[in-house]
Amino acid sequence: MLFHVRMDVHLPHDLPPTEAAEILAREKAYSQELQHSGKWRHIWRLAGQYANYSIFDVRDNEELHAILSGLPLFKFMDIEVAPLLRHPSSIRDSDA
Amino acid sequence: MLFHVRMDVHLPHDLPPTEAAEILAREKAYSQELQHSGKWRHIWRLAGQYANYSIFDVRDNEELHAILSGLPLFKFMDIEVAPLLRHPSSIRDSDA
Amino acid sequence: MLFHVRMDVHLPHDLPPTEAAEILAREKAYSQELQHSGKWRHIWRLAGQYANYSIFDVRDNEELHAILSGLPLFKFMDIEVAPLLRHPSSIRDSDA
Amino acid sequence: MLFHVRMDVHLPHDLPPTEAAEILAREKAYSQELQHSGKWRHIWRLAGQYANYSIFDVRDNEELHAILSGLPLFKFMDIEVAPLLRHPSSIRDSDA
Amino acid sequence: MLFHVRMDVHLPHDLPPTEAAEILAREKAYSQELQHSGKWRHIWRLAGQYANYSIFDVRDNEELHAILSGLPLFKFMDIEVAPLLRHPSSIRDSDA
Amino acid sequence: MLFHVRMDVHLPHDLPPTEAAEILAREKAYSQELQHSGKWRHIWRLAGQYANYSIFDVRDNEELHAILSGLPLFKFMDIEVAPLLRHPSSIRDSDA
Amino acid sequence: MLFHVRMDVHLPHDLPPTEAAEILAREKAYSQELQHSGKWRHIWRLAGQYANYSIFDVRDNEELHAILSGLPLFKFMDIEVAPLLRHPSSIRDSDA
Amino acid sequence: MLFHVRMDVHLPHDLPPTEAAEILAREKAYSQELQHSGKWRHIWRLAGQYANYSIFDVRDNEELHAILSGLPLFKFMDIEVAPLLRHPSSIRDSDA
Amino acid sequence: MLFHVRMDVHLPHDLPPTEAAEILAREKAYSQELQHSGKWRHIWRLAGQYANYSIFDVRDNEELHAILSGLPLFKFMDIEVAPLLRHPSSIRDSDA
Amino acid sequence: MLFHVRMDVHLPHDLPPTEAAEILAREKAYSQELQHSGKWRHIWRLAGQYANYSIFDVRDNEELHAILSGLPLFKFMDIEVAPLLRHPSSIRDSDA
Repeated sequence: MLFHVRMDVHLPHDLPPTEAAEILAREKAYSQELQHSGKWRHIWRLAGQYANYSIFDVRDNEELHAILSGLPLFKFMDIEVAPLLRHPSSIRDSDA
Repeated sequence: MLFHVRMDVHLPHDLPPTEAAEILAREKAYSQELQHSGKWRHIWRLAGQYANYSIFDVRDNEELHAILSGLPLFKFMDIEVAPLLRHPSSIRDSDA
Repeated sequence: MLFHVRMDVHLPHDLPPTEAAEILAREKAYSQELQHSGKWRHIWRLAGQYANYSIFDVRDNEELHAILSGLPLFKFMDIEVAPLLRHPSSIRDSDA
Repeated sequence: MLFHVRMDVHLPHDLPPTEAAEILAREKAYSQELQHSGKWRHIWRLAGQYANYSIFDVRDNEELHAILSGLPLFKFMDIEVAPLLRHPSSIRDSDA
Repeated sequence: MLFHVRMDVHLPHDLPPTEAAEILAREKAYSQELQHSGKWRHIWRLAGQYANYSIFDVRDNEELHAILSGLPLFKFMDIEVAPLLRHPSSIRDSDA
Repeated sequence: MLFHVRMDVHLPHDLPPTEAAEILAREKAYSQELQHSGKWRHIWRLAGQYANYSIFDVRDNEELHAILSGLPLFKFMDIEVAPLLRHPSSIRDSDA
Repeated sequence: MLFHVRMDVHLPHDLPPTEAAEILAREKAYSQELQHSGKWRHIWRLAGQYANYSIFDVRDNEELHAILSGLPLFKFMDIEVAPLLRHPSSIRDSDA
Repeated sequence: MLFHVRMDVHLPHDLPPTEAAEILAREKAYSQELQHSGKWRHIWRLAGQYANYSIFDVRDNEELHAILSGLPLFKFMDIEVAPLLRHPSSIRDSDA
Repeated sequence: MLFHVRMDVHLPHDLPPTEAAEILAREKAYSQELQHSGKWRHIWRLAGQYANYSIFDVRDNEELHAILSGLPLFKFMDIEVAPLLRHPSSIRDSDA
Repeated sequence: MLFHVRMDVHLPHDLPPTEAAEILAREKAYSQELQHSGKWRHIWRLAGQYANYSIFDVRDNEELHAILSGLPLFKFMDIEVAPLLRHPSSIRDSDA
């Protein structure tokens, strides 16, 4: 089941650089593991923003929330979620 | 070059049904031709909305505008555009 | 799978009364059938508003959209959708 | 009498973890006691958000406020309240 | 039980004057009857606006909605409702 | 002359409790003195909010501002002001 | 007593030109009479907008509302009102 | 050339009182010097707000910016600017 | 003197095509004459929008308003104006 | 390829002056180097704001993001990006 997610990151400007670097390294590893598993289907950077648009393909709402709330950057993010489905004009059976 | 686009459709409630059906048929054909060409990479319906999120892969801003302003539903749509790029955490070279 | 939905109804003030009455009768029958099936779990009126908050329990995003876009009042509504899940403080296994 | 409430939690990122844990434990106990009493009828997590939608069934506005302002997390929350009533299309006498 | 209500009136500019006058006369009679009953405790005009702030003292949410949805101008209004209670700094037992 | 005022209080979460208690005690005394004088005609708590709606009956804009800017909590408040007048449907000469 | 008022005009695009011209002529005469009386102290056009900022010097809220609701363009306007007073840094006793 | 400016002041609540007093004294002197020069034509306090509406009469955009960015409170303010001109209904040649 | 202007065009969907074509032809001629005169320094289309960003170099606010309010599409546009000046980091004396 | 960018700067009021000065010096050098290269085509200050409107002429979205995210002030800015193209009414082949 597909979800569209926008994440905006707001790091406090007084976060110690080593702490920030450590969180960002964990965030990258966490994201890449989920991409390899096929659950995090797409991730794009928005030009000029510390933000991304992502597409998730998960079993249900519970799994989506478990993934998002487990993000190392979760407490520094504003997140918007929209449930998606196949568009009737799509040329594909699914569009994950 | 990738762009994220959201389209919200607002058909006037007094649009004659035959006129609406004719526009929607042209819209679908137009969209599918661009999907086959590889320029309209993804299209998803938002659950509960007369709206879609789409990803376009085009040569430049001019081509994006030519495609969007040529939509048969263009004058009935609110459109938001965001330029995208590869995310540094992506596991792929491109994520079109 | 649970979804929270808000629906705001905006009937054009020049809609002929017989047409409005016919749509509203179909809307009520449609809603009650879905309530009996267990898919439309709750529906509440907001005091002072021509609007409702509803809880749906459906198989997936596709089913949610099929239900909402099939509403006789769909073209006169603004709809907001939020995916829900069990709250960790809930005293119940599910809270449908 | 039914009320729809949305609560968004904003914990300061520099709140000491032990203090946060202590508040969250009290919050959970407080919520569950009210759920057992029947006053806090439903609580759902919004996917991807540190937020919940809840339904309260209370005697009057005073009791609602006493409950909400007594939340251990109250000073870290944005709260929205909407008074509800039975929807005319509901198949039940009440829909608590 | 007290509620704070804001009503903004938007009459279509092409509403026939006799129809408008008839609705406004019914609106005034309806409001004054409720004021005499004690349920519509206060009504104030906002300077420069076709709008009012009102205080209602009703039995419950159901009665509030019955009153508001029965307004002859209801379909031409935007309405906001907020449940009220005695303020802890008030010098009176109630402040209806 | 009547004014409608909404006050939302935002106490910094790191305000020392004794300082907060002292300000709140002064706020209450200040409000009650103005209520006794007849200038602060009504004050209601909004259910679920650290906020109030109030009605002031003052000589002019200057007096209103002197009262509001003198509030012990003034620097922690968001305040909205709307000038009021007797509504043409009111059953009373004044509605203070 | 001073008030700051912003007026935005939205003429329906299908208003017959002769009707529009007649309303605008009455609007101008109405405004100039109030300017001569000293009640409408200032009126400025906002560059690029069909809108004005104005300063009124009136006896009280009632008089302000009587003036604004009597504007021939009133039903085609969005109006915002803010009560003003002498600024403590002003070099004048009043600043009408 | 006339400009309409709104300034909202947000002093950090932990600004040392002596520092605040020193800035405010400089702000007042700065404002009064510009009022005497004729460039800062009007300044009004908004009732209930730590804010002002002002009218400036300056040579050009550069001079306006030099004045506003030179305000001792500049870094604590939100500022909105609107270019003005003589209104066609004004009874005066200019309305500075 | 430089101004930044955004124009959004909203043509009524029932505007007769010949009338629309005639207005658009006049709009284009009007714009190009001002571009040749040097007053309308830049005009860009926003991708995916029926809108433009423009830079005007005019004598004063009056001239800017005369140009904008004279646009054949003026009554179908939402317009936003911001006064500009040379940026202190610019490598040019002016940046028209 | 052209992009319109708005940047709003929000320096923390407790940023040490020497640190602020050092960042601003780097920002200016960075901007001027890009202006000399032709990639940062225009930069204007908004009157009364700590903000600028800029036009970039870059190869693609990636280059735009590399430039913007490399700004020494990036973490203190709110940035909005809009892709641009030649306007059909422009008198020039390009309008960089």
